Amino acid sequence: MATTSSTPSGPAADPAPSVLTLQCADQPGIVAAVANLIADSGGNIANADQHTDRESSVFLQRIEVDGPVDWAAFDRGLAELVERFGMQWALHRPGTRARVAIACSGELYCAADLLNRVELGELDIDVVALVSDKEAAAPLAARHGVPFVHVGGGLSGEERATQEAAFASALDELAPDLVVLARYMRILPEAITVAWSGRMINIHHSFLPAFPGAKPYHRAHQRGVKLIGATAHYVTAELDAGPIIAQGVATVTHRDEVEDLVRKGRDVERKTLADAVRLHLEYRVLVWDNRTCVFA
Amino acid sequence: MATTSSTPSGPAADPAPSVLTLQCADQPGIVAAVANLIADSGGNIANADQHTDRESSVFLQRIEVDGPVDWAAFDRGLAELVERFGMQWALHRPGTRARVAIACSGELYCAADLLNRVELGELDIDVVALVSDKEAAAPLAARHGVPFVHVGGGLSGEERATQEAAFASALDELAPDLVVLARYMRILPEAITVAWSGRMINIHHSFLPAFPGAKPYHRAHQRGVKLIGATAHYVTAELDAGPIIAQGVATVTHRDEVEDLVRKGRDVERKTLADAVRLHLEYRVLVWDNRTCVFA
Amino acid sequence: MATTSSTPSGPAADPAPSVLTLQCADQPGIVAAVANLIADSGGNIANADQHTDRESSVFLQRIEVDGPVDWAAFDRGLAELVERFGMQWALHRPGTRARVAIACSGELYCAADLLNRVELGELDIDVVALVSDKEAAAPLAARHGVPFVHVGGGLSGEERATQEAAFASALDELAPDLVVLARYMRILPEAITVAWSGRMINIHHSFLPAFPGAKPYHRAHQRGVKLIGATAHYVTAELDAGPIIAQGVATVTHRDEVEDLVRKGRDVERKTLADAVRLHLEYRVLVWDNRTCVFA
Amino acid sequence: MATTSSTPSGPAADPAPSVLTLQCADQPGIVAAVANLIADSGGNIANADQHTDRESSVFLQRIEVDGPVDWAAFDRGLAELVERFGMQWALHRPGTRARVAIACSGELYCAADLLNRVELGELDIDVVALVSDKEAAAPLAARHGVPFVHVGGGLSGEERATQEAAFASALDELAPDLVVLARYMRILPEAITVAWSGRMINIHHSFLPAFPGAKPYHRAHQRGVKLIGATAHYVTAELDAGPIIAQGVATVTHRDEVEDLVRKGRDVERKTLADAVRLHLEYRVLVWDNRTCVFA
Repeated sequence: MATTSSTPSGPAADPAPSVLTLQCADQPGIVAAVANLIADSGGNIANADQHTDRESSVFLQRIEVDGPVDWAAFDRGLAELVERFGMQWALHRPGTRARVAIACSGELYCAADLLNRVELGELDIDVVALVSDKEAAAPLAARHGVPFVHVGGGLSGEERATQEAAFASALDELAPDLVVLARYMRILPEAITVAWSGRMINIHHSFLPAFPGAKPYHRAHQRGVKLIGATAHYVTAELDAGPIIAQGVATVTHRDEVEDLVRKGRDVERKTLADAVRLHLEYRVLVWDNRTCVFA
Repeated sequence: MATTSSTPSGPAADPAPSVLTLQCADQPGIVAAVANLIADSGGNIANADQHTDRESSVFLQRIEVDGPVDWAAFDRGLAELVERFGMQWALHRPGTRARVAIACSGELYCAADLLNRVELGELDIDVVALVSDKEAAAPLAARHGVPFVHVGGGLSGEERATQEAAFASALDELAPDLVVLARYMRILPEAITVAWSGRMINIHHSFLPAFPGAKPYHRAHQRGVKLIGATAHYVTAELDAGPIIAQGVATVTHRDEVEDLVRKGRDVERKTLADAVRLHLEYRVLVWDNRTCVFA
Repeated sequence: MATTSSTPSGPAADPAPSVLTLQCADQPGIVAAVANLIADSGGNIANADQHTDRESSVFLQRIEVDGPVDWAAFDRGLAELVERFGMQWALHRPGTRARVAIACSGELYCAADLLNRVELGELDIDVVALVSDKEAAAPLAARHGVPFVHVGGGLSGEERATQEAAFASALDELAPDLVVLARYMRILPEAITVAWSGRMINIHHSFLPAFPGAKPYHRAHQRGVKLIGATAHYVTAELDAGPIIAQGVATVTHRDEVEDLVRKGRDVERKTLADAVRLHLEYRVLVWDNRTCVFA
Repeated sequence: MATTSSTPSGPAADPAPSVLTLQCADQPGIVAAVANLIADSGGNIANADQHTDRESSVFLQRIEVDGPVDWAAFDRGLAELVERFGMQWALHRPGTRARVAIACSGELYCAADLLNRVELGELDIDVVALVSDKEAAAPLAARHGVPFVHVGGGLSGEERATQEAAFASALDELAPDLVVLARYMRILPEAITVAWSGRMINIHHSFLPAFPGAKPYHRAHQRGVKLIGATAHYVTAELDAGPIIAQGVATVTHRDEVEDLVRKGRDVERKTLADAVRLHLEYRVLVWDNRTCVFA
């Protein structure tokens, strides 16, 4: 959870609510203190959701604030609470669209689905670029009027290093708020996963933790499972082991060949990834202890 | 939502949290006022969930309170808030098990499922009686050591009136906290539905509002649907039109005859009814405007 | 079920199987007779599925035939069986892509989804035109390189008649194998529904038979349901009452406003419609008695 | 799939259909040959389902036969086909109820659910015994009038060997058609898994292959998954790696503690196990290559 704030000063009624997210060690009085801060600043709690994790005694909260808030007063009061409770926090003011980079390889359906949703107004974001290690993805970017960045290269040795550096540089230059790995089939070096921690979402085509790594549909078919799934998660250094945001499922039968699993799975992947991206962009996902709180 | 309180006086640490539910017209400052009351009474908010209905501007909240609460002080403060905000409220202290009456007719599987869950410790309730218009239900009650009340009689004319009066009297005498209609196949007179408003849950074997009334599985088969369902709802004067608490679903195909729909539906009904009963008994269901808020 | 055949003569190994579908009154010996015909013609049964409807005593079967079939011999033998058993049948030879017309109004997401699937190779069809009563749909057609046909006009009186005539003419001229109503929000005159019987699929945004007609999401929200759905069905003269091909479902809660139901519903509609189109194009859907047999 | 037959001789109309299951290497003419056999013996194909596994070229079929079959003629003809095609087969005549042994340990909910279904007439079987390593299961058996067999003993060393021998002996003496491990929490010695191959069904409380072995709900909670599941499978020598018959799923959120996963999982386990038992007893499950064909 980034702890950045971009609060302009002065009271003003917002068209959409602001979102405050916070987490800290559980202590008595947090809810009252935060509610008072909002009320004293002239705000109204349009929506609130909270969770206390029993094992780790962590308190997590997401609050939508509207009304004529005096943001300068709010900022001063919040600083006190942050000090007092040892909070991690983030305040998201409405009005700026998230800048999102989408990365894909040869399979375009997840990236196409996201771009389609943007086109239809379902996802209200700026796609800063479609980034791919495959030239074949370029026409998709063109069709949607989105910049295309090619970061090609081989899978081993120096070529691989060059490829990884190109990908890292591309992201650094684009500086998006969020990177979506929409079937980007490269294992990332640790440095990239650290740099984009909590801001990079991947879709994996299995029910994690079943079938991490390569060719999950083949392995699912081989194992004769009756359900397949997809998992959207934040990327961490360990492959396919980051905090899970969303999972989807489809039933399969003995009639389904590997290509049927792929076909059914595509629909699950698209939906699961789009859900996770929306949840993240609405600041509904808080992470602690390699797990997520999803205030849906 | 009943607005009764059974608050003993004096501070004491409870083993389980107390649950406060409330609803009122949406106004600024409610959350802060309630949070302050709890904090000032020595309590801690173990869990909280809230919702504001946009159309009707109704605010609804459910709070779990633990810690060494001074309940006398809490009661005084709550009375003020109730006055100030025009709240409907209920406070549920731990320690007493809900007294539940289960009613059924010839089909026993829903009643048997609930009794089985009580036996297994999944539902922590006292079943005060199994009430039925069919003698055939008696052995089920006996097997679980539960009192059986027979309220038989014909379906029309004077016999029907007698039957309805017997059912009403039985409930009045049992005076349960909740009545569960577990496939009780009688249309209730309005007086009973009014007397038990918000405290009587029915299971209907279709996706309401599709197929209200009799023989929904037959009609679903006739219509050739690909999904069947079940609906648990509070009983109101209008048949199968009360606030919906939970709905479940199962897929069907052309291979499924009516009896297969019945078989598949039984599993959905059992699960949906048991879920609704649990949600109600944990004070997770608030009703307004013939709809439910389910703080799951 | 059309009973047309386009069987060229002479034995030849096909790259993909041919599909034979048939239905008739249930009688002993049908399966053996058909299996013998295929074996005697040099074919192999790559796949077979059958169903006997108990109430109406109708036998329905779908068979995939491959191998070096002598189609002339097959045709002669089939003619005998058709005579003997009183069969309705259809034989679908591989090699020609279905010609599909897609119709939409102002909401483009279902049409866009189908076109996207064609673009990605998920649906192997020729889209002969995007037909709409709204000019606003034109750019979508352009983006996918598909002809656009505008069939505009008012909702009442002479304008309505003109609009309906334009739509009927457009379909007649396009002469597609299948018409997909991808949120085409016009009530069709009976003549069109008869002309395209069994070859026109509609998506309705509710669990039929709940909420037929207009604004189902608004009515679902008003009713407080916990599950919403979508239904793909063949169009018949009676509005939203045709044979159901596929239904999908999504869970909703009290937090979901009408626009959330719309958002969640869009994903269900897209998927349910695409499934129904695929099932139809693979000759997996047989209709009898206003119901469908879906050999999935 | 056992290849035993219990065919009495002489023609007779059966009240319920007989079920023939078979599998062999895929070859042209099998379907016709079997259909002819049935027709020539005076039978009718009430239902048929088949599958050809592409990778292994195995053909599998399940046929329901009714009508006035001359079973002696049928047997002679079948023997020829078995020889000709190298078939594995089984013929199940109606009229005898399956004899089933249920095994459990301390958690009784799966066993109780099966016994409840028998009581309600949902499962038409004879429960020959409830077998358990825990005395605490005895009252459950008593309540349903089912013999109880205690096979207790320690988890290691000689005590373990004694326990395993007692379990093996109990099954040998009971000689059931099917053994259901309804949360029997012992790892079985290979000899037992071999002896009951294809006739012993286990319920595992996770989506296999995720979380095999102990404490899957704890591990699922730790991993922060958003879906949990249950898997019913035939028991093989390798722990939790046998052919999967059925899988079920439930959604979970960050609010769900381990005990909530357990609670939600119980409903999935019960349903998944009962489904698998029913499918097996209706001869709908064929096994090849450690996978199942489920003709549902």
